[in-house]
Amino acid sequence: MDKLSTSETLTLERRNSPFSISIMDLFVNGKDWVNKRNFAHDFVTRESETFGMRDVYFMDREQILEKLFKQEKRLSQLVQNGELTHEDVLAITYIQDFSGPFRLHTSAFIPTLEKQANDAQKIAFLEPARNYRIIGCYAQTEIGHGSNVRGLETTATFIPETDEFEINSPTITSSKWWIGSLGIAATHACVMAQLIVNGKKYGIFPLVVPIRSLHDHKPLPGVHVGDIGPKMGFNAVDNGFVNFDHVRVPRFNLLQRYINVDRDGTVTRPQNIDPRVTYSSMVFLRVGIVNSMGKELAKAVTIAARYAAVRRQFGDSNDANSNQETQILNYPIVQYRLIPLIAKTYAMLAMSHEFYKQYQICKDEMEGGDFSKLKEIHAVSCGLKKWCTDTTIYGVDTCRHLCGGHGFSEFSGLNSSFSNLYPNIIWEGDNFVLAQQTARYILKSAHSFLESVANGSNIRSPNGNDPTNDVFNRYPNNFDSVKFYPWTQKSSSEIASNPTILIELLAYRFSSIAFDLTDRHYSK
Amino acid sequence: MDKLSTSETLTLERRNSPFSISIMDLFVNGKDWVNKRNFAHDFVTRESETFGMRDVYFMDREQILEKLFKQEKRLSQLVQNGELTHEDVLAITYIQDFSGPFRLHTSAFIPTLEKQANDAQKIAFLEPARNYRIIGCYAQTEIGHGSNVRGLETTATFIPETDEFEINSPTITSSKWWIGSLGIAATHACVMAQLIVNGKKYGIFPLVVPIRSLHDHKPLPGVHVGDIGPKMGFNAVDNGFVNFDHVRVPRFNLLQRYINVDRDGTVTRPQNIDPRVTYSSMVFLRVGIVNSMGKELAKAVTIAARYAAVRRQFGDSNDANSNQETQILNYPIVQYRLIPLIAKTYAMLAMSHEFYKQYQICKDEMEGGDFSKLKEIHAVSCGLKKWCTDTTIYGVDTCRHLCGGHGFSEFSGLNSSFSNLYPNIIWEGDNFVLAQQTARYILKSAHSFLESVANGSNIRSPNGNDPTNDVFNRYPNNFDSVKFYPWTQKSSSEIASNPTILIELLAYRFSSIAFDLTDRHYSK
Ligand SMILES: Cc1cc2nc3c(=O)[nH]c(=O)nc-3n(C[C@H](O)[C@H](O)[C@H](O)COP(=O)(O)OP(=O)(O)OC[C@H]3O[C@@H](n4cnc5c(N)ncnc54)[C@H](O)[C@@H]3O)c2cc1C
Ligand SMILES: Cc1cc2nc3c(=O)[nH]c(=O)nc-3n(C[C@H](O)[C@H](O)[C@H](O)COP(=O)(O)OP(=O)(O)OC[C@H]3O[C@@H](n4cnc5c(N)ncnc54)[C@H](O)[C@@H]3O)c2cc1C
Repeated sequence: MDKLSTSETLTLERRNSPFSISIMDLFVNGKDWVNKRNFAHDFVTRESETFGMRDVYFMDREQILEKLFKQEKRLSQLVQNGELTHEDVLAITYIQDFSGPFRLHTSAFIPTLEKQANDAQKIAFLEPARNYRIIGCYAQTEIGHGSNVRGLETTATFIPETDEFEINSPTITSSKWWIGSLGIAATHACVMAQLIVNGKKYGIFPLVVPIRSLHDHKPLPGVHVGDIGPKMGFNAVDNGFVNFDHVRVPRFNLLQRYINVDRDGTVTRPQNIDPRVTYSSMVFLRVGIVNSMGKELAKAVTIAARYAAVRRQFGDSNDANSNQETQILNYPIVQYRLIPLIAKTYAMLAMSHEFYKQYQICKDEMEGGDFSKLKEIHAVSCGLKKWCTDTTIYGVDTCRHLCGGHGFSEFSGLNSSFSNLYPNIIWEGDNFVLAQQTARYILKSAHSFLESVANGSNIRSPNGNDPTNDVFNRYPNNFDSVKFYPWTQKSSSEIASNPTILIELLAYRFSSIAFDLTDRHYSK
Repeated sequence: MDKLSTSETLTLERRNSPFSISIMDLFVNGKDWVNKRNFAHDFVTRESETFGMRDVYFMDREQILEKLFKQEKRLSQLVQNGELTHEDVLAITYIQDFSGPFRLHTSAFIPTLEKQANDAQKIAFLEPARNYRIIGCYAQTEIGHGSNVRGLETTATFIPETDEFEINSPTITSSKWWIGSLGIAATHACVMAQLIVNGKKYGIFPLVVPIRSLHDHKPLPGVHVGDIGPKMGFNAVDNGFVNFDHVRVPRFNLLQRYINVDRDGTVTRPQNIDPRVTYSSMVFLRVGIVNSMGKELAKAVTIAARYAAVRRQFGDSNDANSNQETQILNYPIVQYRLIPLIAKTYAMLAMSHEFYKQYQICKDEMEGGDFSKLKEIHAVSCGLKKWCTDTTIYGVDTCRHLCGGHGFSEFSGLNSSFSNLYPNIIWEGDNFVLAQQTARYILKSAHSFLESVANGSNIRSPNGNDPTNDVFNRYPNNFDSVKFYPWTQKSSSEIASNPTILIELLAYRFSSIAFDLTDRHYSK
């Protein structure tokens, strides 16, 4: 037998698949996304001179930034001409897989304005932002405070004499740091600051603060701004620092959807807005992360599976007809590393659709004033954000190691993927901080379930608004007295092939671990 | 109470230490190394214009290479003047912590010549290499073969007519790839090739092959050589590729310590050399890796512990006198991540001294012709290489994540550490391949122990040459019948505080798992 070429090997492997890849694609990704993705792919291929990324490997940072600025410019022009929609741009950005200096403008500055600006502010800030006449960033984190947002030290003090706010960050620890799009690109920042009116502190609120001149892009007076320097990844994003030396902005610049300061310094909060909506926008950001992780892991397992199929190493003692070495995919120790990751990819993709649906329902209900699902969605979003980002990032690492030396080359695509995804375990709630929040929610729920059972007041949640409580009801803390469970007297293969029973088992496991921990925690 | 400054916090923390740091330093590292390290530190500080590394963060690859070439040049001059010894240079390189384009010249080309060249070859190649008149690399891996060294395709064919070897690598898969110091620096390569004499294949042997002209550094005829491009880390090392189009070298260039080809093509292997010594040089390289890992992890846990001590986040509800936030080091979830790593660092450092001693004994015995310890040392070196590199590399990652956002900055030092250490899980035996070797050794040993017990022939190893067999003898496969173990009727705190019992427990665990696996494996 002649040796098989790489493409012959791949053809054979693909022929082994018992399902149609394109039907699976539609099933997993949905027709809309498949169309969008194909459209984006065609666009990038057609405009490959601007959008082709083959040459970035050998470019320095400045060259890459220049290339990305050109891409952004082209896209914004096409949007303004009406040739592309905003969704088209997102799809193109997605398949480009390369964050640039406008990333936070699009992903944080604009969404914050959409959510927190009033109508006049939308005209003043959102419209020019959408037309790239101003470029913004989201400036929350300071050197001294990341996870503990309440500890932020930058102040915004109302100055009645001039009807302005004065932004001040006099210390090193109060300097904004890590702010994407700020280092080079931003003309404006949405600054999270301690609001002080008439000597009273009102908490952290967002203000739009001009950073650089719209004429010559020089920092404005009192603004000390720059790039924070080289990072593990994400180097085409210009994370920056800024501190403010008594910088004044008009009172108008405080985003007014959730708070209002009058000309005379009266502070009001709109009545028809529940303060919990702020909380819900954190959930929104995490839903976005959770949604993207499955697609990211899918890229990595595709690279690794393909490589493991064509890479041959050591002799094939099982196949006398072959004069070729064994495909490494056939080694158990390779399968052990790769195949569970492929399964997790599918699980993550499927879950993300369902979770997004749940989130939409919760959001719609909140708009009608019903916040009953928010707590649960929040706890789940914390847990999923941690699990999905950990699984994806360390999954990408497993794929990289699987490729041996070639995984270490930038050309594998797995190194930039690992480094650029990495901050997802840090931002929008550090994973360890989030894990504690989910754990706390579960313990509290289990504890109050037990208490309500003890005093006879427990009921199952009426509209499925408290699925955690429902699980506790299904598997209450009476495991010793139950004689028959859905899996009782079933063989392990019967159980393994029955999804309903598997879910029941998971619920049982969840409940029993939760009660066990609750017991230990509250008896301390 | 006033807020503590960073240095005040650190002073307080350090005061908490119940032992003297400098005595611990001497105990862990030994006086020789402490002196060498301090010497190196002074040297680098004194010559900071050349050796200071503060500015590398903002340099591009070319600038870094230039800087490193300057350092190498200065060091080589000082060695040639007799102002520095080879050991001094190693210490300086160690604290510089930055591999450059001469790394493989020093760490692979020279050692290979020391071990495998005969006296005439030492004069021809080793002396000019030591004086930097030629720069070499170690060219083993090819595109098609890494782990499977026997599969290498580059050939070295004896040409009787001209008394030469012809080096040939006609295909993509036979191209050498990944070769450090080859991309830019090397003038010579130690090429591992299939030796063919009179049509007969003799296996893989090393030949010295000139790569670039000593006059203008241009590639020599028939040599196609270059840099393999950007990598996850290690970018100041010029990993390169080369393929050979019928390149001729004198017969003399085959390294002759372990093989000899006569003028007339007669192949002989020296009688007083056991072929297993080749095998022992793989062990040597792994011993080196194992030895360095503890020191590398020590750097990372030092950075993380220090940062966790000075980083404060969220309120301190336990301390009413404090107006400061809690040091993150005080959070259990931070301790849970960091403290076991500190313990592992100490364990690794201590182990590495002991393991090196064992290796030296084994080596000395081999020089006297006694190879009885080699098998065990080989299996242990595989297992330790895997464990130490995994623990260190993912430990560095844990330290990085512990530092929150600031871990993601290059200035944390943890990203370059992670990326540069990473190839240790790939080279000198991929970790998964090595794990299988250790596992195989243990299963084989357990199996033959059981067989020898069954036929009454088992004895404990006479000079401690087979410690694995000794452990099996101590805890043979009779667990059901034993009534009394050293830990029987002891409390867990008695056991935990008694190192002798802990080691016995480990031996018990090792033995029982090994027999269990053996049983399952051989009964298949
Ligand atoms: C690439 C990148 C881009 C970013 N872009 C932006 C941006 O555009 N705008 C912006 O505002 N910010 C941005 N950030 C900042 C990011 O939001 C913060 O890094 C993040 O909030 C974590 O805060 P920190 O870095 O201060 O870590 P810290 O909060 O100091 O955490 C350090 C460590 O302490 C632990 N810890 C903290 N609190 C607790 C606790 N209560 N219990 C137990 N353990 C605890 C954490 O687990 C972590 O290991 C970015 C960060 C990165 C890395
Ligand atoms: C930074 C760097 C520097 C290097 N420098 C040099 C150098 O100077 N000189 C030099 O000669 N080489 C060098 N190398 C090459 C290095 O030695 C090889 O990468 C290494 O031997 C692994 O080989 P491979 O990359 O071909 O991986 P492969 O052998 O192809 O392994 C790929 C995957 O298959 C798995 N696998 C392979 N065989 C088996 C098996 N039998 N059973 C189960 N699983 C298996 C592995 O676990 C791995 O996950 C360098 C590599 C790197 C990354």
